[in-house]
Amino acid sequence: MGSLHTDVLENNSVCALNPLDPEEFRRQGHMIIDFLADYYRDIEKYPVRSQVEPGYLRKRLPDTAPYNPEPIETIMQDVQKEIIPGLTHWQSPNYYAYFPSSGSVAGFLGEMLSTGFNVVGFNWMSSPAATELESIVMDWLGKMLKLPTSFLFSGNGGGVLQGTTCEAILCTLTAARDRMLNRIGRENIGKLVVYGSDQTHCALQKAAQIAGIFPNNFRPVATSKATSFGLAPESLQSAIQADIEAGLIPLFLCATVGTTSSTAVDPIAPLCAVAKEYGVWVHIDAAYAGSASICPEFRHFIDGVEDADSFSFNAHKWFFTTLDCCCLWVKDPSALVKALSTSPEYLRNKATESKQVIDYKDWQIALSRRFRAMKLWMVLRSYGVANLRNFLRTHVKMAKHFEEKVTMDKRFEIVVPRNFAMVCFRLLPPPVKDHEDETLRQSSELERANEINRKLLESINSTGRIYMTHAVVGGVYMIRFAVGASLTEDRHVNLAWKVVQEHAEAILKAC
Amino acid sequence: MGSLHTDVLENNSVCALNPLDPEEFRRQGHMIIDFLADYYRDIEKYPVRSQVEPGYLRKRLPDTAPYNPEPIETIMQDVQKEIIPGLTHWQSPNYYAYFPSSGSVAGFLGEMLSTGFNVVGFNWMSSPAATELESIVMDWLGKMLKLPTSFLFSGNGGGVLQGTTCEAILCTLTAARDRMLNRIGRENIGKLVVYGSDQTHCALQKAAQIAGIFPNNFRPVATSKATSFGLAPESLQSAIQADIEAGLIPLFLCATVGTTSSTAVDPIAPLCAVAKEYGVWVHIDAAYAGSASICPEFRHFIDGVEDADSFSFNAHKWFFTTLDCCCLWVKDPSALVKALSTSPEYLRNKATESKQVIDYKDWQIALSRRFRAMKLWMVLRSYGVANLRNFLRTHVKMAKHFEEKVTMDKRFEIVVPRNFAMVCFRLLPPPVKDHEDETLRQSSELERANEINRKLLESINSTGRIYMTHAVVGGVYMIRFAVGASLTEDRHVNLAWKVVQEHAEAILKAC
Repeated sequence: MGSLHTDVLENNSVCALNPLDPEEFRRQGHMIIDFLADYYRDIEKYPVRSQVEPGYLRKRLPDTAPYNPEPIETIMQDVQKEIIPGLTHWQSPNYYAYFPSSGSVAGFLGEMLSTGFNVVGFNWMSSPAATELESIVMDWLGKMLKLPTSFLFSGNGGGVLQGTTCEAILCTLTAARDRMLNRIGRENIGKLVVYGSDQTHCALQKAAQIAGIFPNNFRPVATSKATSFGLAPESLQSAIQADIEAGLIPLFLCATVGTTSSTAVDPIAPLCAVAKEYGVWVHIDAAYAGSASICPEFRHFIDGVEDADSFSFNAHKWFFTTLDCCCLWVKDPSALVKALSTSPEYLRNKATESKQVIDYKDWQIALSRRFRAMKLWMVLRSYGVANLRNFLRTHVKMAKHFEEKVTMDKRFEIVVPRNFAMVCFRLLPPPVKDHEDETLRQSSELERANEINRKLLESINSTGRIYMTHAVVGGVYMIRFAVGASLTEDRHVNLAWKVVQEHAEAILKAC
Repeated sequence: MGSLHTDVLENNSVCALNPLDPEEFRRQGHMIIDFLADYYRDIEKYPVRSQVEPGYLRKRLPDTAPYNPEPIETIMQDVQKEIIPGLTHWQSPNYYAYFPSSGSVAGFLGEMLSTGFNVVGFNWMSSPAATELESIVMDWLGKMLKLPTSFLFSGNGGGVLQGTTCEAILCTLTAARDRMLNRIGRENIGKLVVYGSDQTHCALQKAAQIAGIFPNNFRPVATSKATSFGLAPESLQSAIQADIEAGLIPLFLCATVGTTSSTAVDPIAPLCAVAKEYGVWVHIDAAYAGSASICPEFRHFIDGVEDADSFSFNAHKWFFTTLDCCCLWVKDPSALVKALSTSPEYLRNKATESKQVIDYKDWQIALSRRFRAMKLWMVLRSYGVANLRNFLRTHVKMAKHFEEKVTMDKRFEIVVPRNFAMVCFRLLPPPVKDHEDETLRQSSELERANEINRKLLESINSTGRIYMTHAVVGGVYMIRFAVGASLTEDRHVNLAWKVVQEHAEAILKAC
């Protein structure tokens, strides 16, 4: 039993129920819904950050797949006993790490429906509703963000759902690369330069690597505290100028609205002005903060987007749509299609030939694609613009509340200004007694501060009560408190601050 | 109501229920389970291929997202009324198009759990169970396929779940490219050549385009009926030799087990022998047919895999795991990691630094990743090796049954030998009366045969009773009958053949 090598009596020993039997689907489906509803109800009892050690699961699971079927009840016991301890609970209200993934009932239901229909929507023909709903919701969302018409289908641009920002950047970079190389010749690939800042998400570097941009031609332009770690247009201009003088060709700029380290915002309008001068494709990566622009009071952060070539944000980050769902708009879809299309005979069909339809396979890396529009549509309709704004504002308000608490406690400082729902703070180390050389003192003080905050964060996270992560900007180690988990309420934020204070006290005492 | 511009009373007019409220989750979740169970129960009443015209949905949906929330009941009415008519029903038992996507209860439940947990598993630290379960099931599956140990973690290789084959090929090609360029210098990128056959899936060409391989250096080697459209090792050898003589550098071969057009199988062992001689990375794309190798009687199709560098198959195609789930094994994970890794400060953690864990973000294009292992684990356990083999064998048996019916009807012919669960057939045109020049007669006969089969297929598909698609190999237009939808039973295959015969009769009568 259970061995891979027991082939005897194979055809007799197993039950032949159809794998998609509707009544079995119903029975087991209801069971999992209750399991997950209970999980959300009880989620606070689990340590937020998993407490397991590397290799924990291999010790607990068998070496081979079972030979005979196992009942769902047994499997679900193992989910509870073996899997849940190894999960970090991203849906916990006490989760403030990285950027939270804001799950929702509507997002979950949409994913259920698209998984249930299980269509493979590579082109229009393969399941028209998948393509058409995607174009429609991308226009809806574009209007909510007040994107210029040139990014909407009505303005000859258009939107597409990608898995992640990495894919969105790789696709637009490839489009920009081929548009340029088709003009100047393939042999010049080694001259193309890609720009970001030292705060840009590593997705850009990865995309550049994959697209064959020479590693030396990836240009992370330095930022500083003076510009709140936003990319200064003059710095971009100098970098581009230097590259041109060196015989290189500026290709692509990725500007960020809401960087991962500190939610810094690159000034889009002036950066686009510089880029335009040199014919550089500008992509705006608003992975985290883009959604906030549906609120009038945050829209200004993407002012200037009308001069960019492409814009993306992750609905799976802070827009209640489960992983994965990156919304990408481009002004010139034909640039994507030219770089990414393939037309094998087995996919030929009248609809494609009529040129009246979109075949999204030509807008992305993969050919196969899930029906992601379903979950975004469910989120937009279930909550409406009004509730979505309210949800985001509630998170910002909670972050602000936390920020106020930090500000009022003189043992702490806010490291960079808060723009959205993330607070970057640190504990200040107590002054040292013996005065040394001033520069040395400052540098060793920075080291001491960094060390103390590293300790503080680890001591907090290892309790499992709340979970935060860190970043380093301008040499300063800071703790990131990112509000955004859907279940978080005021009382959780108050608890979080209490936990931070308790651990800080203990650490300061030990200094 | 419903307008984007009604900002008045915003905070008062909307209900403030938490978007992840557990009891609302329970209520709505049960509703959708019943909706989908009913959908599967009644699926035969829908036309398999959607009958809508391009643009149907834009006419039926509003231009903007609703301002106020809408109840789930309203949304589900629209799913039924507006979305379902635009779906092609991939889960229908009468679906035989492309390659079917074999959904299952277990696959669906796994997707529910991973969506419910909604962890973003970029590295081990972010949710250890996601990474560890993935390594474990990839080893399980590798053993089921009898892959050599060198592809398993125990043999210093390893497996990873990608979204699609396109991604698997792009990742391995990028790894091969960088391994080569790091040795011979970046400036030689224009000399690298990528090989496949004229039957290789267009994923290879697309990956080569994205990775910056020069378009002229993509080499689809010609195949012919003589080798059943498999890639002949001598043809590969000649192509490589010619490229070397032209000063180019052979880099990568994608060999296919089960091509999309006709399920042809490239002879892996002799192809690897040729490739090895020239230091070419060999990837085996067994997207469709790989799963069959868990049955001893089909394992021989991947014989020789021990000499390849990487191997992939799509569990979302013919392995009961919902879209998307491509299983990729590599012998040298470090080649992937060198080409695809990034290590930003905000992801630094002790587990990574201990080098005791896998960070799968470095094995794929994107950084974020879904907990795909959950659904594969559920499928392996819920069905066991025994039932999985039985399911696949049942599909093969049904295809064989259909093939026999085609063979017995002298008006039809089988175009290429059947290897798995797909039958490639065509209707033979009735002989023409007036005899012309022999060559001209043959070519016009081929044209006539192609035209008649094109008509036959369109006439069948437009009824919505069954859905099949076509391919052209060696100039011959053929109809592909791909068994694999989970709900298909003998009676459906019998019906399908009856439909084909009826339409053929009508068409022959009209000739």
